[in-house]
Amino acid sequence: MTEATLTARADRLVDLLAEDELDCLLVTNLVNVRYLTGFTGSNGACIVSPEARLFVTDFRYIEQAEAQVRGFDPVKGERDLLADLAGRLSGRAGFDDADVSVRTHRKLLEAVGTGVELAAAGGLVERLREVKDEQELWAIAAATDLADEVYELIRRRGMVGRSERDVAGELEGELRARGAEPAFPVIVASGPQGALPHAVPRDVEIEPGVLTIVDMGALLDGYCSDCTRTFTTGRLDARASEVYELVRLAQEAALGAVSAGANCSEVDAVARDLIEAGGEGERFGHGLGHGVGLEVHEGPRLAKTAEGELRAGNVVTVEPGVYLPGELGVRIEDLVVVTDDGSEVLTSFPKELIVVD
Amino acid sequence: MTEATLTARADRLVDLLAEDELDCLLVTNLVNVRYLTGFTGSNGACIVSPEARLFVTDFRYIEQAEAQVRGFDPVKGERDLLADLAGRLSGRAGFDDADVSVRTHRKLLEAVGTGVELAAAGGLVERLREVKDEQELWAIAAATDLADEVYELIRRRGMVGRSERDVAGELEGELRARGAEPAFPVIVASGPQGALPHAVPRDVEIEPGVLTIVDMGALLDGYCSDCTRTFTTGRLDARASEVYELVRLAQEAALGAVSAGANCSEVDAVARDLIEAGGEGERFGHGLGHGVGLEVHEGPRLAKTAEGELRAGNVVTVEPGVYLPGELGVRIEDLVVVTDDGSEVLTSFPKELIVVD
Repeated sequence: MTEATLTARADRLVDLLAEDELDCLLVTNLVNVRYLTGFTGSNGACIVSPEARLFVTDFRYIEQAEAQVRGFDPVKGERDLLADLAGRLSGRAGFDDADVSVRTHRKLLEAVGTGVELAAAGGLVERLREVKDEQELWAIAAATDLADEVYELIRRRGMVGRSERDVAGELEGELRARGAEPAFPVIVASGPQGALPHAVPRDVEIEPGVLTIVDMGALLDGYCSDCTRTFTTGRLDARASEVYELVRLAQEAALGAVSAGANCSEVDAVARDLIEAGGEGERFGHGLGHGVGLEVHEGPRLAKTAEGELRAGNVVTVEPGVYLPGELGVRIEDLVVVTDDGSEVLTSFPKELIVVD
Repeated sequence: MTEATLTARADRLVDLLAEDELDCLLVTNLVNVRYLTGFTGSNGACIVSPEARLFVTDFRYIEQAEAQVRGFDPVKGERDLLADLAGRLSGRAGFDDADVSVRTHRKLLEAVGTGVELAAAGGLVERLREVKDEQELWAIAAATDLADEVYELIRRRGMVGRSERDVAGELEGELRARGAEPAFPVIVASGPQGALPHAVPRDVEIEPGVLTIVDMGALLDGYCSDCTRTFTTGRLDARASEVYELVRLAQEAALGAVSAGANCSEVDAVARDLIEAGGEGERFGHGLGHGVGLEVHEGPRLAKTAEGELRAGNVVTVEPGVYLPGELGVRIEDLVVVTDDGSEVLTSFPKELIVVD
């Protein structure tokens, strides 16, 4: 990331600090630290205030920090960064209460100077991260394109007679061969196993004539993609075909509802209402989607209980599913960028039902 | 792990609870949960008391829990396990203050019944984990053997003219091809880069006639190995050869000092004193070693500031190093099991200086 991009992020964070009446923010979650500073090592933290942008790491990472960090002054601290950080906090200092442990908090309290108030302030950087900037959109699009190409391997190699684990392992190998990593363990779930939304691939052969869910994302240059396709390994009975078409219809309709200003719960409802109307309302047991970026699950959420509206620059999955226990599962998932007047679908792998042998 | 093994672990934990006057312990760290229950999923927690052994997960993992968990009653809770857990705590309830966030702690406080006292009690399961049982020793030995075989690839393939990243990537691929995962990103650090103990492999060609550090571990069936070797890509000058021999001597001497009852700081001192006597005392900037098991870094530590004694069943690395900034680095690391009358070295890859082209 360029210095201008990183500086813009920290400036936006300073605006949020003012809203919450914080004098500074201690950022400890490493994903947030990376987002703000560019640092990708495994021990570092930063402090952001209107006056100061300070990055602290230990001796092992100081050269890496000097090469990566932009817009922050890198400081070499002890391996346990706490003491160095505590001494640099002032006034009403926010900390990430979802990240800082009870033990670390107690040590911080002991170490900060008088006049410093530690205030629970988790989620501020996560709010910024929900709206992607230009460089992030490029990175996510590149990860998506790479995964789309890896999906082609399924058509080329087929699945019948191979184990779920074999197929999943080959896809992970292909992600790596192209310079990425799996954003999460690849899911291959065939036949009745498809009814488990988070199935772990088994040493079980994929049979002909069944639906098979493949859920895969690439992690490339720090950014994730996420895509699900449901394939068939042969002719399906009427019920399975109907379920597939219902999910596909619901997915397309929900895509059409994505736009800046749309309520996150209402976008979910577009898919959910259609699936209910199709008689499978009970069988769609998860939310419609989630944000994707540096993490494969981040904000905003698209779900029945989600609050707030979509904003331009959000990147979210749209992934309705229908799961019939003991029978089959169907899930279709695209990754989309929210724009002012709709959305741009990043995923390009086709969604019509594909037969693979 | 067998039910008998898991039950024995929970029984040992109950003994520790009595020492700390705790009525029960809430275990939230997933590595500790796995150690006690056998569960390998990504959302689960357990409660251990003299009377009860309870495991809670959400609907996504309940089938997996029923297949894996032994000696605990599996309970299906909400995805946010907090409410289910809080209602089952009683009396003086320990929690892992190094794992539980400030936010989770606040929610727990609100959710527990009256008469429940939450007591910071991190590190209890980690203390148990320091002493490995029979099944763990087998698992760690198997991971070590696998990594030893992968080290052979370096001799077979050579390094000169290849980039550090290429060599590291090939080693990671070979770990995976043999059914393991890298326990941590493989380090390949050549020439002056070797002076950085946690160097990230570069797109830089390895030259002839330089020392090259390779630090690699296998993760197999949940258990880690850890090994470092320093190779040479040709004839070395006198200084480099001397440094290598000094580190090797210090490593062998420290190995000889490992035994149940030995002070952790004194084992470190055996290597450190020799390196100081060799005039490089300033150049050995880290501890001598650390425990290895479910995590690649766990207790006990072997270091200048370490307290306590080694116990039979500890599995520790012995890895002195000398780092000359801008010049070279040497580190030699074995993994050893502490026994009553000494140690058993698990690593079998040779330690004499190996020339690879």
